[in-house]
Amino acid sequence: MRQRLLEATVECLVDAGFTGTSTTLVSKVAGVSRGAQLHHFPTKNDLVVAAVRHLAEQRREEFARVTHQLPTGKGRTRAVLGEMADYVTSPFFTAALELWVAARSDEQLLAAVGPLEIEVGRELHRIAVELLGVDETQPGVRELIQATLDLLRGLGLANTLGDDSRRRSRILDQWANTLDRELKELS
Amino acid sequence: MRQRLLEATVECLVDAGFTGTSTTLVSKVAGVSRGAQLHHFPTKNDLVVAAVRHLAEQRREEFARVTHQLPTGKGRTRAVLGEMADYVTSPFFTAALELWVAARSDEQLLAAVGPLEIEVGRELHRIAVELLGVDETQPGVRELIQATLDLLRGLGLANTLGDDSRRRSRILDQWANTLDRELKELS
Repeated sequence: MRQRLLEATVECLVDAGFTGTSTTLVSKVAGVSRGAQLHHFPTKNDLVVAAVRHLAEQRREEFARVTHQLPTGKGRTRAVLGEMADYVTSPFFTAALELWVAARSDEQLLAAVGPLEIEVGRELHRIAVELLGVDETQPGVRELIQATLDLLRGLGLANTLGDDSRRRSRILDQWANTLDRELKELS
Repeated sequence: MRQRLLEATVECLVDAGFTGTSTTLVSKVAGVSRGAQLHHFPTKNDLVVAAVRHLAEQRREEFARVTHQLPTGKGRTRAVLGEMADYVTSPFFTAALELWVAARSDEQLLAAVGPLEIEVGRELHRIAVELLGVDETQPGVRELIQATLDLLRGLGLANTLGDDSRRRSRILDQWANTLDRELKELS
């Protein structure tokens, strides 16, 4: 039931935005009684933060599964960027974006969303370092990985108002080449 | 009076978010009568879209002014990136972000915001090409500029939940070096 509530919450955040999401709507979409919903998640903020955390956990498991299927050698960087781009164009990003933006002008939400954003950011950074197999003790490498993650965040944002996949694909092709050359340069 | 209304709208979007912004609040903050406000901008959507467009125009003028003050030669790329980063961490970005996200689940708003987003994106791209003095007919250069703009958008987003200036500065230092090397590589 908890899982059903969390999935319904993501659906509501994606379809109706943070403002249009209410605990009543989520109960209805999940087909769960208001009482049961309130038992699991007393407030809307509890619900939305738990939903985004739940998605982040799911994604972590997906990355763990995919790691062994990615090509090694030439083509690996582009494949890793593709996986990460899938992440920032998934409902996870949209739901998270709704929370980040709502939290800007909602102090209570910010108190829960701030730490979650840091946690998700660190996790994504760790995944990028691991999948790309880079050595962050080399000067500049850490910043290059951070730039890659900010680029992906920007691509995620650009995709929210419409399908941006063709443009994104060309940018990632170029970015993979740049990243390979730069990582060699810095090593 | 028009200008005062637009400036008050930006202030409201930044402080209260799209949801918290109402035409009544804007009239109050601007110190303008409801009648006068309704005369200039009949709906909330008219008002917020005009406000973001107004900010974009202001920024264009600022870029035109700053162009002649930027260093030439070594250091220019970093200076250009710094100017553009100022843009994505300004109230303009915050106000625009509120609109982009609200437009996701508001068809009427999307009809106005979609074209505006494309216009602002193209304008920023044009400014980047001009300030960096790059030749986009070279294969890969266009994608590199687009990547730079998406990176900046990501940095803008990362800055909305808290001051991210130190991290951003290190990333831009690294990115300026990368961009210079890559543009040389592609030319």
